[in-house]
Amino acid sequence: MRNQGRGQKPAKRQQRPQNFEYIRKLNGKIVKIFLRNGEKIEGEIAGISTYEIIVKVNNKNLLIYKHAIDYIEY
Amino acid sequence: MRNQGRGQKPAKRQQRPQNFEYIRKLNGKIVKIFLRNGEKIEGEIAGISTYEIIVKVNNKNLLIYKHAIDYIEY
Amino acid sequence: MRNQGRGQKPAKRQQRPQNFEYIRKLNGKIVKIFLRNGEKIEGEIAGISTYEIIVKVNNKNLLIYKHAIDYIEY
Amino acid sequence: MRNQGRGQKPAKRQQRPQNFEYIRKLNGKIVKIFLRNGEKIEGEIAGISTYEIIVKVNNKNLLIYKHAIDYIEY
Amino acid sequence: MRNQGRGQKPAKRQQRPQNFEYIRKLNGKIVKIFLRNGEKIEGEIAGISTYEIIVKVNNKNLLIYKHAIDYIEY
Amino acid sequence: MRNQGRGQKPAKRQQRPQNFEYIRKLNGKIVKIFLRNGEKIEGEIAGISTYEIIVKVNNKNLLIYKHAIDYIEY
Repeated sequence: MRNQGRGQKPAKRQQRPQNFEYIRKLNGKIVKIFLRNGEKIEGEIAGISTYEIIVKVNNKNLLIYKHAIDYIEY
Repeated sequence: MRNQGRGQKPAKRQQRPQNFEYIRKLNGKIVKIFLRNGEKIEGEIAGISTYEIIVKVNNKNLLIYKHAIDYIEY
Repeated sequence: MRNQGRGQKPAKRQQRPQNFEYIRKLNGKIVKIFLRNGEKIEGEIAGISTYEIIVKVNNKNLLIYKHAIDYIEY
Repeated sequence: MRNQGRGQKPAKRQQRPQNFEYIRKLNGKIVKIFLRNGEKIEGEIAGISTYEIIVKVNNKNLLIYKHAIDYIEY
Repeated sequence: MRNQGRGQKPAKRQQRPQNFEYIRKLNGKIVKIFLRNGEKIEGEIAGISTYEIIVKVNNKNLLIYKHAIDYIEY
Repeated sequence: MRNQGRGQKPAKRQQRPQNFEYIRKLNGKIVKIFLRNGEKIEGEIAGISTYEIIVKVNNKNLLIYKHAIDYIEY
């Protein structure tokens, strides 16, 4: 359970289950997604699964693999 | 089970099993697949396994590894 | 077991075990392998393991890591 | 448990649980993050999950995937 | 156990345990290793672990991560 | 347990536990680390965790992700 090993300030993060993901909080939000190929995609996050993110951009739906994402600005 | 950690709107996604993948819904559909190498492949998704996607393009069959996919437009 | 979460056409893929891989069907076949480095390798698939593919090209044997493969044409 | 296999100096690291991560010690600190795309991001680490790091840069929040990070200077 | 799902020629590979790796057969051999960075390293494989390969090249020892290898010619 | 499947010389590696890593032997040593971005970092390995390596370079501490390392010369 303790995942710091040495005496440290009691960690806020220990209250989160191990599969916690920040990305889940961005569901329904408009974000900018920076991909490994250099592309920047701006759109609404419309779905999230273990390895995928669904983004609505204009009239298109994109299934983006998380492994292709460098970072997301929100 | 709760994978958000803090009080939030009851999540629709909790109704999905953990191995849910959006890609499974695209089986049989014509999509555009954008690869990490810059290629764009348009074809019909003809099969999906844990790490692979089978795509029919013209007269060819392609076994595409998911790790090589940046995103899919549908 | 159900890996679609919502009512959908009974999926053929549920008949396959979870470790099913399409690549296993290509054992012994001549294929074109497109790598992440841009190389295209044409040869006979002579062996498959969890992370590796053995390919015979001319007089050489190649141990190719699946992670280096973008797609395979067959 | 022993993860060195051969007689060696008793390892300090055996005192750490297997899911120990150095990144957890950098929570709240200002760091420089070097990404695989060549970008260098300087900011405060504001959150860490299994696969993600939250960084505050100026007025923006970034959700950075660990897989996109080459190294962090601190 | 069956990892083909449909009636097919009884697979030789079912005789191998699931963690079988071809790379283990190359221990002690001189090989050419092609890396994702474009480098070609020729040397003797002197050790193999789950994620690493030890290679002796001239007077140097290299610890190469498997994830950095595209393919090995032998 | 047997991870070769076919009769072969009794493997030294079977004496090592499955989570054995050569990198653990380099703790405290001065090494050259070659990254996927083309950088070469020379420094002392000051810590190792499952996915990270701590390196001291001049007056700086670097947390390097293993996934970003191509190879290490030692």
